[in-house]
Amino acid sequence: MARPIVTLVTDYGTNDHLVGAMKGVILGINPEVQVVDITHGVIPFDVLDGALAIGNSFGYFPPRTIHVVVVDPGVGTSRRPILVAGDQQYFVAPDNGVLSLVYDKSETLHGWHITAEHYFRNPVSSTFHGRDIFAPVAAWLSKSWQSGSFGDEISDFVRFNIPKPKSAGNNAMKGIVLRIDSFGNLMTNFTPEDVPALTAADGKFTIRVGNVQIAALSPTFAQGATGEAIAVIGSSGYLEIAMNKANAARTLGVARGAEVTVELG
Amino acid sequence: MARPIVTLVTDYGTNDHLVGAMKGVILGINPEVQVVDITHGVIPFDVLDGALAIGNSFGYFPPRTIHVVVVDPGVGTSRRPILVAGDQQYFVAPDNGVLSLVYDKSETLHGWHITAEHYFRNPVSSTFHGRDIFAPVAAWLSKSWQSGSFGDEISDFVRFNIPKPKSAGNNAMKGIVLRIDSFGNLMTNFTPEDVPALTAADGKFTIRVGNVQIAALSPTFAQGATGEAIAVIGSSGYLEIAMNKANAARTLGVARGAEVTVELG
Amino acid sequence: MARPIVTLVTDYGTNDHLVGAMKGVILGINPEVQVVDITHGVIPFDVLDGALAIGNSFGYFPPRTIHVVVVDPGVGTSRRPILVAGDQQYFVAPDNGVLSLVYDKSETLHGWHITAEHYFRNPVSSTFHGRDIFAPVAAWLSKSWQSGSFGDEISDFVRFNIPKPKSAGNNAMKGIVLRIDSFGNLMTNFTPEDVPALTAADGKFTIRVGNVQIAALSPTFAQGATGEAIAVIGSSGYLEIAMNKANAARTLGVARGAEVTVELG
Repeated sequence: MARPIVTLVTDYGTNDHLVGAMKGVILGINPEVQVVDITHGVIPFDVLDGALAIGNSFGYFPPRTIHVVVVDPGVGTSRRPILVAGDQQYFVAPDNGVLSLVYDKSETLHGWHITAEHYFRNPVSSTFHGRDIFAPVAAWLSKSWQSGSFGDEISDFVRFNIPKPKSAGNNAMKGIVLRIDSFGNLMTNFTPEDVPALTAADGKFTIRVGNVQIAALSPTFAQGATGEAIAVIGSSGYLEIAMNKANAARTLGVARGAEVTVELG
Repeated sequence: MARPIVTLVTDYGTNDHLVGAMKGVILGINPEVQVVDITHGVIPFDVLDGALAIGNSFGYFPPRTIHVVVVDPGVGTSRRPILVAGDQQYFVAPDNGVLSLVYDKSETLHGWHITAEHYFRNPVSSTFHGRDIFAPVAAWLSKSWQSGSFGDEISDFVRFNIPKPKSAGNNAMKGIVLRIDSFGNLMTNFTPEDVPALTAADGKFTIRVGNVQIAALSPTFAQGATGEAIAVIGSSGYLEIAMNKANAARTLGVARGAEVTVELG
Repeated sequence: MARPIVTLVTDYGTNDHLVGAMKGVILGINPEVQVVDITHGVIPFDVLDGALAIGNSFGYFPPRTIHVVVVDPGVGTSRRPILVAGDQQYFVAPDNGVLSLVYDKSETLHGWHITAEHYFRNPVSSTFHGRDIFAPVAAWLSKSWQSGSFGDEISDFVRFNIPKPKSAGNNAMKGIVLRIDSFGNLMTNFTPEDVPALTAADGKFTIRVGNVQIAALSPTFAQGATGEAIAVIGSSGYLEIAMNKANAARTLGVARGAEVTVELG
């Protein structure tokens, strides 16, 4: 049988010992695990950014992958640690909505409130549940595959909606820049389902963000003159504003959360 | 038997080919190794920061883990390459004090001056012993587990003390900010052993750092109003100054090395 | 048999889900693979920087390693996806020159234009071939080792030359700073082959970069007074300008691409 895969998504960054401590705990319990870094660069304390990180990556992993998702500004408070089985994968996380996109994208969902303390490190610190609860639970799960042994079944997960574009009257919709990637591409919250004209053969529209307006989609990132903003449907299905071989966010002076308007006609 | 684990702690960053070269050398000698990144974000040339990185993470790894710790501003000079067995784990590093915290935390310690050149890459560069000495020694050790084959036993390791808080008269102690983590939390060099009042039920004290003073410990990071500095005993046992969902270092304008005072009463 | 090794070199950074998606695709096809991050910190869109990253690291990996190299500003355009066998290793990349240094350093070279779509993810996005073409091809190759099954053999790879120092009359040569590493060392494009006097016993020369001039090589990085620029032949064979425990690039105010002169006598 293949070695179990445990992935990590955190907002811990990679300059501290925190990620190393989690890896050590996992391998101490089950040295057969293949630990896979997805990202530790989630914006600190930002549960929405964490939800996008796991929500846009888990679908590529094989069945039985265990994802440890720790964006946990409420660590040590009453928020619950949970184990979720979504379709054929597992998720260990705080119950603060960080799995919201996982819930949206999974056809079957089962959840457990993690309470079986004999699986935890002892004593449990009140500031580092990544090391003391989430990592060991993932590692024990990778040995036993008994999700029901970690606590009672629950279904009332904390869940939020990824912000959706809203009608702004007169054939216009207002959305936002959800995040900015390493290339400086602006990932908006518009999808072709929100504005079918974006991908329609005869669709007419104007996208406005910052001081630019764009009236057509480009098929690839390699379009557009130097310094020209282009629009692309990105690989996660969202409308993105980009620049050919340049950093659109920096060039346009547009930050995360900025307003994006799509006007029809 | 489980696959051998070799971890890496360096100040190489992750933008260059250096870490890749080390991983290649290790896997070339022993392709069964699981290579685990602890961190490559140690502050460049900073042996104390490296000592904290390995010192605060090795304890979570299982027996027989081999840690390669390369913070080595004196590479190519007379400082010795050493192999250390501490309790049941192994450490390969330059003998410059970067293992000082490992020495403090290990009950049993054995060390060897690495001189067996047939284990090195050939020729050995004078600028990249991570690739040419430390990585291959770790990989060969993961095959043979014969620590004595790499050179003569030694016990006179270079060792420094992590700076400790000092008495500042009148029931006060002065310490420093040892490091700032990715969240902006200030990790000080105070522990509850230095100032038992910090964790005593009726302890009265005032912590001063930058322009703020704090008179109580918080149980978790999720305490305090917006922009309010709080104090927490962090997961590595040090007193930390933090802010609820915010970057304390940036908000307070406090840098690494800043003075921290704890006054009793 | 040892587990197959698939390495990753990209300009994706590590804050996004992109790297995670690639790892998931690889492990979904072949969960036995050991995925090894070389670097995701190639300068965005910079094919030369990517060529240096893989060119200076692949040589340390064992035979049969598969390297996935994705610096691909032309993703989705007519540039070809290729599979290359160089000596005993494999490379999966866009045909944009990013493997130029691999070609220079390999004694035997075979290449294939990847066209066998049944190995791709379906549908293939026009913006993320790392996930949809390069990762799955690498994973399938790690199972079958049938490089010929991915498309027709080719040999007309796109290939560029790493910029070489040029004669500047009167016993002088002009080169450039090829890249700046995490320590702030300036890696120039001079090698001892370009200027044998650099390493000759009685070689007399002056290196000029920014406002400093250096008239001797140092054997290690631990030479020179505080703030003094030194010259070293680095571990990849290039002349480097450095500073003892300091960031030379920042101290000297010298950036990538800056002119470097070596004058003989």
